[in-house]
Amino acid sequence: MAETKIRFGILGCANIARKISRVILLSPNSTISAIGSRSLDKATAFALENNFPESAKVYGSYDAVLDDPDVDAVYVPLPTSLHLQWAVLAAQKKKHILLEKPVALNAGELDTILEACETSGVQFMDATMWMHHPRTAKMKEILSDQQKFGQIKSVHSTFSYIGDENFQKNNIRVNPNLDSLGALGDAGWYSIRAILWAHDYELPNTVTALQDTEFNESGVILSCGASLNWTNDKKIVTFYCSFLSNLSMDIIATGTKGTLRVHDFVVPFNARVGPYFAVSDSKWIGLGCEPEPSEFRIPTVLPQEVLMVEEFARLVGGICFGKAKPEKKWSMISRKTQAIIDAVVASIKKGYEPVEVVY
Amino acid sequence: MAETKIRFGILGCANIARKISRVILLSPNSTISAIGSRSLDKATAFALENNFPESAKVYGSYDAVLDDPDVDAVYVPLPTSLHLQWAVLAAQKKKHILLEKPVALNAGELDTILEACETSGVQFMDATMWMHHPRTAKMKEILSDQQKFGQIKSVHSTFSYIGDENFQKNNIRVNPNLDSLGALGDAGWYSIRAILWAHDYELPNTVTALQDTEFNESGVILSCGASLNWTNDKKIVTFYCSFLSNLSMDIIATGTKGTLRVHDFVVPFNARVGPYFAVSDSKWIGLGCEPEPSEFRIPTVLPQEVLMVEEFARLVGGICFGKAKPEKKWSMISRKTQAIIDAVVASIKKGYEPVEVVY
Repeated sequence: MAETKIRFGILGCANIARKISRVILLSPNSTISAIGSRSLDKATAFALENNFPESAKVYGSYDAVLDDPDVDAVYVPLPTSLHLQWAVLAAQKKKHILLEKPVALNAGELDTILEACETSGVQFMDATMWMHHPRTAKMKEILSDQQKFGQIKSVHSTFSYIGDENFQKNNIRVNPNLDSLGALGDAGWYSIRAILWAHDYELPNTVTALQDTEFNESGVILSCGASLNWTNDKKIVTFYCSFLSNLSMDIIATGTKGTLRVHDFVVPFNARVGPYFAVSDSKWIGLGCEPEPSEFRIPTVLPQEVLMVEEFARLVGGICFGKAKPEKKWSMISRKTQAIIDAVVASIKKGYEPVEVVY
Repeated sequence: MAETKIRFGILGCANIARKISRVILLSPNSTISAIGSRSLDKATAFALENNFPESAKVYGSYDAVLDDPDVDAVYVPLPTSLHLQWAVLAAQKKKHILLEKPVALNAGELDTILEACETSGVQFMDATMWMHHPRTAKMKEILSDQQKFGQIKSVHSTFSYIGDENFQKNNIRVNPNLDSLGALGDAGWYSIRAILWAHDYELPNTVTALQDTEFNESGVILSCGASLNWTNDKKIVTFYCSFLSNLSMDIIATGTKGTLRVHDFVVPFNARVGPYFAVSDSKWIGLGCEPEPSEFRIPTVLPQEVLMVEEFARLVGGICFGKAKPEKKWSMISRKTQAIIDAVVASIKKGYEPVEVVY
């Protein structure tokens, strides 16, 4: 039903906004009704280049987007240091918010954003795309299966990619005034989320950063890792995130009965199919071991980015056109992800001491 | 040439000795000429069950094997706590030594063993089978390729398997009097070796155990992990080893230009072919990334265990029948592996503080 399409406003012309704009237009229940940039020329060019509908309005400010009654929801790909100001204002203007990660510079800022959303009754979701791939639900079924996987005993997750020379000099992700969390807030957001996801969002009690964090000249994290610990459940859980090594997007999870592996959990190499490897009850047989892990390939007609926007728009539609309340799951898992990021930062600052996770 | 076959003596009837006995008989340049056990009946049954050659002698003591002039080399699968005594005596009796891992309870003991080997001019090798699979050399080529892999930025290795109820009660690997290093000495030996191997055996400067080591009632390690650090080369390097989770035998290594993954580095699921995944220069393209990692499958006519025995026997043959000196590489890498094990134990004892690696 065309009349129930959620009308997005886009704040800013960041690179990632190109991708998500295409995705909003691909999603069956959303469209773009406005874009705002500090430069009207930039916004005009962006709308043209990205095939915005003719009806879309182009503004020379973010405020104008938030004041537009034809905007139901905003997608916010601004630098992280601007999230507090603009996400709070968007919520106050009753706009539902799809917020790029890292959602805030720290949990205190995020709490302010989430309180504003709560007060205004708007939906909040962070743009963690892989959560919405059907593969993710299939892998979760395995992790939850007491017969096939059992109890979690170890998880290692990685997300790294190479930022080239231009990236290392100019990208907002390595600029201390725009995104001081660097690789931890960007790549680490996903690795940490993977661990929380595997644990049904049960927070660890302590986090210990691993020695040898790498920083750029401005003190922004380019590479780091940490170990996470649960007081009542011993296991070995670690992650690695970096802008300094070739693409890796791995999860290895071992349970008392099974093993799960995925090589591209963040962005499937092939947008139409998400593979993973799983096996249960491995045994030593002769000179080898059996059974061999099976590869499963989960197809998706719509890429995970479209599924994310579709799910967000569905929730927003339920609020705008129905009687639904905002789905709190998404703010809860953002908040927990941020709590771990804060603990990693604190552990690095304390010389790699264990730090309690505050939530 | 039948006359140049290396004649093995086997010390003890451990389970692993069944596998390696078969392997010695399969290897083209070795045979079994004797077995000794504290029980002559056990040794007799073992020789029969494992199709020893009729010429093989059966003894009711380890000493008798070491005194037999028809024994060139011994395979020592005794519990770790007995290695010092019997490996030193074997070396003194001029027997070349293929020693099961963990090779010693600590580096001090291993030094005594290696000194005895040095004095007697006998070959020493630990029984780390995967080192001898042709896949291992292929993977090393990738890691050493400055264009395909670049500089190492992270490595995570795992080796875990489930010890069932009988194992947890009765196996020598969890008995504090026989093998007090538990999962660290057994499974961890391989995970640590993988990291050293990836680094061309350049030792880390410090090791920090990860919190939440699991012990059995007798204080033997059942599960643990650690982070390794090199002073002049920042990277994130971790391993996990356990008797408490389903089989995992993974290496994920990321470099500045490539990524290498293997799911079964310790024992290939299929004894005839070793697969791994490698990719270089990954790029974000559209909603996915390219190129997809390629799976390589390295066949081997002889299983890795046979290749290990063959290589050991080749070295021994060079010494016995030629003018070769013992190949020191194998004692060096055993010694370095043991040095890291010692540092992990020390770090656990010091409450997970970083510990300098002594070599």
